[in-house]
Amino acid sequence: MTQSIQHTVHIDLADRSYPIHIGAGLLAQSALYQSLPKAQSALIVSNTTVAPLYAASLQQVLQEKYAQVFTVVLPDGEAYKNWQTLNLIFDALLAQACDRKTVLFALGGGVVGDMTGFAAASYMRGVPFVQVPTTLLSQVDSSVGGKTGINHPAGKNMVGAFYQPRMVLCDLDVLQTLPERELSAGLAEVIKYGPIADSAFLLWLEQNMEALRARAPDALAHAIRRSCEIKAWVVGQDEREAGLRAILNFGHTFGHAIEAGLGYGEWLHGEAVGCGMVMAARLSQLLGLVDEALVQRLQTLVQRAGLPVRGPLLAERDNAGRYLELMRLDKKSEAGEIKFVLIDGCGKACVRAAPEACVRQVIDACCAV
Amino acid sequence: MTQSIQHTVHIDLADRSYPIHIGAGLLAQSALYQSLPKAQSALIVSNTTVAPLYAASLQQVLQEKYAQVFTVVLPDGEAYKNWQTLNLIFDALLAQACDRKTVLFALGGGVVGDMTGFAAASYMRGVPFVQVPTTLLSQVDSSVGGKTGINHPAGKNMVGAFYQPRMVLCDLDVLQTLPERELSAGLAEVIKYGPIADSAFLLWLEQNMEALRARAPDALAHAIRRSCEIKAWVVGQDEREAGLRAILNFGHTFGHAIEAGLGYGEWLHGEAVGCGMVMAARLSQLLGLVDEALVQRLQTLVQRAGLPVRGPLLAERDNAGRYLELMRLDKKSEAGEIKFVLIDGCGKACVRAAPEACVRQVIDACCAV
Repeated sequence: MTQSIQHTVHIDLADRSYPIHIGAGLLAQSALYQSLPKAQSALIVSNTTVAPLYAASLQQVLQEKYAQVFTVVLPDGEAYKNWQTLNLIFDALLAQACDRKTVLFALGGGVVGDMTGFAAASYMRGVPFVQVPTTLLSQVDSSVGGKTGINHPAGKNMVGAFYQPRMVLCDLDVLQTLPERELSAGLAEVIKYGPIADSAFLLWLEQNMEALRARAPDALAHAIRRSCEIKAWVVGQDEREAGLRAILNFGHTFGHAIEAGLGYGEWLHGEAVGCGMVMAARLSQLLGLVDEALVQRLQTLVQRAGLPVRGPLLAERDNAGRYLELMRLDKKSEAGEIKFVLIDGCGKACVRAAPEACVRQVIDACCAV
Repeated sequence: MTQSIQHTVHIDLADRSYPIHIGAGLLAQSALYQSLPKAQSALIVSNTTVAPLYAASLQQVLQEKYAQVFTVVLPDGEAYKNWQTLNLIFDALLAQACDRKTVLFALGGGVVGDMTGFAAASYMRGVPFVQVPTTLLSQVDSSVGGKTGINHPAGKNMVGAFYQPRMVLCDLDVLQTLPERELSAGLAEVIKYGPIADSAFLLWLEQNMEALRARAPDALAHAIRRSCEIKAWVVGQDEREAGLRAILNFGHTFGHAIEAGLGYGEWLHGEAVGCGMVMAARLSQLLGLVDEALVQRLQTLVQRAGLPVRGPLLAERDNAGRYLELMRLDKKSEAGEIKFVLIDGCGKACVRAAPEACVRQVIDACCAV
């Protein structure tokens, strides 16, 4: 019955440990759900894009375990990652008289996963939840590690919780319906793991980028597995981002500025991260941490993934100043000082501040004119 | 410098342990704040009633430790314990560019404490916070133990987190400005600890009720200390209310129905709990767990505390049915079955379901006609 599980990666967090299963057709395998906590009811949270494709089949398999299975469908998109949409989940839970044992299932991409996780963390001060990520990005990054939350008009993911799922199911089949732009965006978070933690994986990605973009199942399975292994290793050491975990934000400081500056949803998160990684690599090179060759390798790989490598102009006058202003709101900032995740030799990352002049130079060099 | 600390009670929760200091004039003692985490900034959260009395003096003492100290003043009352008001805290944090180290101070009663705690749990996925409770109720109950949250139109405290403060400061002086009705409401949560955990404390309360209502500092100090000790003992064993902790909800199942049925804010929480305890004791007696004498003792004590002992009518037709309907939404309910905290001999509590006919009989007997 578990033949189609290709890999299982374990997140080791004492009593909050959980498995990530990776394989084809997992969503409909009822055996996988048997280890979950018993409950009277389950709530599937999905969105208008994903629900028509997969909600019925998840509902069907869950009905074997739970007496009542409900579904709530949220509007699709980063623009809806806010309190109003989150409240639709609470409304559904209360309308169905769901109790403290009700299990939530996040069926969708990063936005659905982040909101469902935060709803699970907060409903009656915490109910169990399961991630069923349907995008490459959420399979390799956002569904793993317990970061949940919503956006505030003044900043992305400003309100949320660290709250771990009970299980993550990465079904390779669902990636076949993913729009190409979303696949590329997911590849940004895959590429990330190479420069920060595993130079051999970077090399593998350079050799297999075409297979990944062609959605070859074995290539996808390996990329997802290796990404989750690295993330599991980092999160297992630093669940609440007191230190090491911040390296997973490689490319995200510049990337968040791009997303916030353009308005969320204009560029996909992965697109902003792809471009942000090139900028962060350039900054690393300028500070003498890596050589020009690595910056070029990364830029070429990001480009081959179908991602932008030049940043957008966020202001007509003093574009770099606008980037800096937005980056100061990053959660890694302390007392207004921006902390960057930089590459310190291929396969190793560090977190540090940088002279403003260098940051300005990078922004000027990397932005479209 | 710490002469005026009369008692310190420790909440023992491994790396989330913290002290509760009880004494006169603690709020202005700068030495007490020295053990808190370092940060650039602090945010005091208070309300329109308490801020004019104490915010300036807290702000002054905090400025010795934090370079920037801000204050946000919320509207006062249970009716404002919602997302809109919570968002005022996030708005203030973001407007002042507060970072992940910023320390929040809850200066007020239970509503301020619950909302500040939930804001601290959620802002950037968690910043430190300190409880400075200014009501008796929050000193003996809501500020201790890490329950935080907001109300949803469909239920009280339905959205929140378990999130522990770094310190609780119970300043006895601030109780001198507390309205008498609020003092009585606080006494309900003090009385609670007797029947569920300490029959000697119940006897002490019977002997000292006049001193407590006259706000004699030594009597208040003892009542707060013993309440916090019992709560610390319970929370230390069951932080997330998997079992034992539910006994702290004695009187709350009936009480929540009263609050929800009348509309939040009509009766004070402590008033509803006071009356709810009498109803829960009556139910315990009906099920043969305690004798009539204990029910009478408790009813007399609740009355002497200045609290109502008869429940309001929540519906003209089938009042008991309306109570039952509201109680099914209680967070202790599972699969629609209401769990009651009952007294199983004086000084010992249990959590169990009860036959609907018995519950109806209690409601009919205990409600005003």
